[in-house]
Parts: sequence; structure tokens; C-alpha cells
Amino acid sequence: MRATVMYEAGDVRIEDVPDARLVEPTDALIRVTSAAICGSDLWPYRSMEPTEGGRRMGHEFIGIVEEVGADVRTVKRGELVVAPFLWSDGNCVFCREGLHTSCLHGGRYGDPGVDGGQGEAVRVPQADGTLVVLPVEQDDALMPSLLTLSDVMSTGHHAALCAQVGPDKTVVVVGDGAVGLCGVLASKRLGAEQIILLGRNPARTALGREFGADEIVTERGEAAVERVRELTDGLGAHSVLECVGPDEAVTTAIGCARPGGAVGRVGIPEGETIPGVHRSFFANLVLAGGPAPARAYIEGLLPDVLEGKIEPGRVFDRTTDLDGVPAGYRAMNDREALKVLIEP
Amino acid sequence: MRATVMYEAGDVRIEDVPDARLVEPTDALIRVTSAAICGSDLWPYRSMEPTEGGRRMGHEFIGIVEEVGADVRTVKRGELVVAPFLWSDGNCVFCREGLHTSCLHGGRYGDPGVDGGQGEAVRVPQADGTLVVLPVEQDDALMPSLLTLSDVMSTGHHAALCAQVGPDKTVVVVGDGAVGLCGVLASKRLGAEQIILLGRNPARTALGREFGADEIVTERGEAAVERVRELTDGLGAHSVLECVGPDEAVTTAIGCARPGGAVGRVGIPEGETIPGVHRSFFANLVLAGGPAPARAYIEGLLPDVLEGKIEPGRVFDRTTDLDGVPAGYRAMNDREALKVLIEP
Repeated sequence: MRATVMYEAGDVRIEDVPDARLVEPTDALIRVTSAAICGSDLWPYRSMEPTEGGRRMGHEFIGIVEEVGADVRTVKRGELVVAPFLWSDGNCVFCREGLHTSCLHGGRYGDPGVDGGQGEAVRVPQADGTLVVLPVEQDDALMPSLLTLSDVMSTGHHAALCAQVGPDKTVVVVGDGAVGLCGVLASKRLGAEQIILLGRNPARTALGREFGADEIVTERGEAAVERVRELTDGLGAHSVLECVGPDEAVTTAIGCARPGGAVGRVGIPEGETIPGVHRSFFANLVLAGGPAPARAYIEGLLPDVLEGKIEPGRVFDRTTDLDGVPAGYRAMNDREALKVLIEP
Repeated sequence: MRATVMYEAGDVRIEDVPDARLVEPTDALIRVTSAAICGSDLWPYRSMEPTEGGRRMGHEFIGIVEEVGADVRTVKRGELVVAPFLWSDGNCVFCREGLHTSCLHGGRYGDPGVDGGQGEAVRVPQADGTLVVLPVEQDDALMPSLLTLSDVMSTGHHAALCAQVGPDKTVVVVGDGAVGLCGVLASKRLGAEQIILLGRNPARTALGREFGADEIVTERGEAAVERVRELTDGLGAHSVLECVGPDEAVTTAIGCARPGGAVGRVGIPEGETIPGVHRSFFANLVLAGGPAPARAYIEGLLPDVLEGKIEPGRVFDRTTDLDGVPAGYRAMNDREALKVLIEP
């Protein structure tokens, strides 16, 4: 079968790889119908050391169940399923608490022996704990939005929950990438009173407004913090969603929060430490967040997608087949594309 | 009147200073009957640069109201009152949310123009928003425990709340100082299932056991983290109270928390950043805490002190008059005394 393999920074290829096949009785074999390139795929795209065999890529996908292991009970051949970006058993102490990202028996797509989502097929371990059946056909117009449940919309939702977004809350979203935009959408969905989006890409902030942002702040750093204070009666925001990762974005996020406020972090940290301890401590901020337990959120977000109440799929602005994946990485890395949808 | 003045690291003196007197109509004049030396007083005791006029010290005290300004409504002459370690108006947006430490019109004892608590009398600004009347006489045997409400018990309680302590929770308390011990007491009071105290001073950990600690871990750093894992089915603790401050203590606290757990920080941070971002992010930890809004907690903790259900005053192991205050600082700094009670 054909799949995406990354060999080093900037070197992504579509190659023939061994066909995906069942290994464990808890596996399901999925023929991928939709997949995506993730902002987090750009990290190795920018920094990966050369490797001998390369790394299989992709962790956001929807597909048809082709075959299931003997122990699989909750999905069956022919069903359309969405996969959260990590697999998990659904039974361990952390899965039962809704923190599937810390599953004691879970893991990552693309790790040795596990397929990636940017290919024709994937062996999904722990299929019962991982996959969610979708009540639509594979050519449904909702497919882009359904695909975002695997990662980017669930991640925006996680940021909003960690930032304690709710009615009567003022919200700042740091970052106008696909995750930040989904954070705006999630905040609106959770009833935020005021949503301020920090970003400077006109097309992206325009989509942010359509998703629910009331104000766009194009300043950065201390100037952005000052502008947010102006927009929030001098106090700062109750809830800040940090959707970028680097220290300067985290510092800005901490600066935008009002005393007693919460910062929900989903941007992958760059450094070894969290900046801004003086501000966060003396203002009694809550810092929370991490990888989103997408599996815990999919069933809750699904009805709103099916009913068209939210359209997170609008973050996709380019569609390609497998051959176009390397160009898709380039376009996202060059910020020419916001997010790329793959139809293998 | 006589009061405590610090001139530089290690130089604490009892001096004659101008009598405390009303300045604003919202002030109350308090004759101090009990005061304390705080662990946080040791920071300037170790590091303060020489200053011309010195700094007035002390922010934990109980006293008799001698006089009130024209606008004061809630306390009156002759009443015994406890002062939280910061003064606050009780009316601003943050006070109304229970975050009196961020009061828009609050401030600190010992700042220029404001008396310190380690003296014969104190002008308390914003008396209505700050002081809490105590329904006992000044010679009541409960006085040491009542005095802890001004800071150390309220701070332990804040750490426990920020760490989300509650029934069925496993708790780690990092630090066997007076705050850590009050953190144990607060955790027990909030119904924690298992309390593990990290400390190595036998007298302090013995008191920790009496306050409710089930296990004492004398190891430090990575060895302490391993021991905590052994004691928690390999998972780590739901709630960790960081009651020390330096980076290594914070790193240990983060290491002790189980995925999805919460770290409540009340130890004053030493550095510019928070260590351990990799662990805290990928385990989806909640980091919360800061200076305790003692004013928000006093009325809730008071009944348990009055009924003898909790005895936080047991953290005091030495009592002195004003003349003995410099020796009290030395004893606490040398870890010969856990916490010093002052009867001016």
C-alpha cells in the first residue's frame, strides 16, 4: 500500500510500504477515506534528524473498517469510523477518567510497528477503546468537519475547557492557526461572552470572526497584552487559550489573563520551562492543558457537527490526494495553506 | 511605640517608631495582642540589601480595636480581631470573587506608610474589608490556632483547594514547614483519602502525622518521586501541595502528580520560570496557586478552630515578647524553631 514517510526535516515522500494488517486480536484494519496534515507534523518537518527507515506520518483520519480482530466488539466491517489522534484501551484508570492521552496501554500512530494516518490503510490497535462509528456515508458533505474531531476541533475544545470557558467569561485565544480557530469555535459553543483572537493573518482572522471572535488583536507581546487589557476593562480575560506553543506566546497568554483566571495550553511547548512565573503565581492563575483527550470529546461534539451547529471543517483550505501530500506539507509550512485535507 | 524593623539581611531590631494612628476614615487602629514570624519573613532575612530607614515587619496578627475611622462600620472599639496578611477593601471585583490578594485597593503591611504586625500597634487600612471579629477573649487558649488564620493555615488551605483535594483523593504535601503541616491539616479536613508528607525533620513530620499524614517520605528529588509512585499504585497523587518554593521542590511536586492531577503552589517561587514543562504538559497537569486570599477563608475555617476540630496553632513551638523577636528570626532561620509566636 502507499503511505507518507518522513526521512528528515523537509523530506516527506509517498512510498510503497507493507500492507497494513491485523496483528493483535484487539486491532481493526481501516481503509482511510479522509486524513489530514496536522500543525504538529510541521515540528519534525522543520527539525527532524535524518533517519534510516523514516517515520510513518499522520494521526488524523476517518475510514472504513475492513477487518477486525477476534476480540473487537464495538466496530464492525463496513462501518465508517473516526480515529482520535492517539489510540487507547478505554478501560484503564485514566481512560475511565476521560484522560485517554495517558492511557496505560495506548500509543501513537507512526511509532515503530504502527501505521500512520496519511496512507491508504491503518492498523488501529485497541480498536474498541479508540474508534467512534460515524452515522454517515463516506461521501457526506460533513466529512471535513467530522475529520476535525480526530484532533484539531477536540484540541480547541480541550483548550477551552482547560481555560474554564463558560457563560459570562471573557476569552482570549492566542494564535490564528487551525487549533486557535477551533478554540474560538469551542469558546463560542461553550457560551463565552466576549472572544478576542490574537492573530495577524487576514484570511484566518476573518474565519475567526465567523467562528465567533468579537475582536481581533494584531499586536504581539506586551502590546497585545495592553490591547487585551483595554478591551477587558483593564482587568484581562477570565480564560486564555494558548494555541501556539513557543515561550513568547505563553508569556503573552499569561499576561492576558486576569487575576484568578485560567490559561488552557495546547500549543506544544518549545522550551524546558514555563515562563512568567512571577505573574502567574502572584495573580493566582491556573495553568492547565496538554494533549487533548480527543476520544473523550468526540461523542459530545459529534451531534453539533451532524446538526451543522459548528463547522470546524472550514479550517481546511486545500484538498489533495496522496501524491500531493509533500506539497501539502510545504504549503502549510510556508503558511500558504491553513490545513490540508487528504483523500487517499 | 515599639516595633520590629529589618535593615538588611540578618539585621532585625526592635525600635521606637512613631505611634500608629488613624489616617484615613476607613482605617482601624489595632493594639496587637498576638503576632507571628512568617516563613516568608526569612526571605528578606536572608537576602535584603541594606536600606536607610529599614522596613517594618510582620503581617500576621490579632489585636484589640482601639479606635476606628469615621467610615468604619463592621468593627468597633474593644473588639478582638484577626487580620489577614494583606488588607483589602472587600468590595472590588476581585474581592467579590474571593481573590482578596488581588484587591484593586489593597496592600501589604510594612509598605511605606503602613505599620507591620510585629509591633505594639497597627493602622489597618480598609478595616471593613479586612478585619474579622473573633468571638473570644484575648487570653483564650485557642489564640495560637486563631492566629494561624491570618496566614499559615489559610495558606495551607489554599494549597489544598488549588490542588483540588477532596474525598477519594491521594495527596502529597511537599515540605514539612509550618505551611506544609497546615497543608496536611487542610487536606485531612477536606476528606483526603491518603496523605503523604515529604519532609525529613523528625519533630515536624511527627506533627504531620498527628495532623493526618499517613506516610512520611524522607527521600528528595527523583527518589521521592519514585517512593510516592510506590505508595500510589505506580500512578502518582491526584493532588500535590507545593509548600516550599525553590525549583527543585516544584520539580518534585510535578513529578509526584499523576496524569490529570493538580499541583497547588504556595511556596514563593525563586526563579523566573516554572520547571518541568514536559511532564506537566504531556501529563495534562493543572498548576494553580499563589498567595492565599486568607480573608476569603477565615470565616469558613473559624468554626472548626473554635470547636477544636483543627489545631493549627500547634505549629508554634516558641513564644516570645517583642525583645525576643530578633532571636526568633535567628531560631527560625537556623531551623531551631518551626514558628515563633509573639506576645508584644
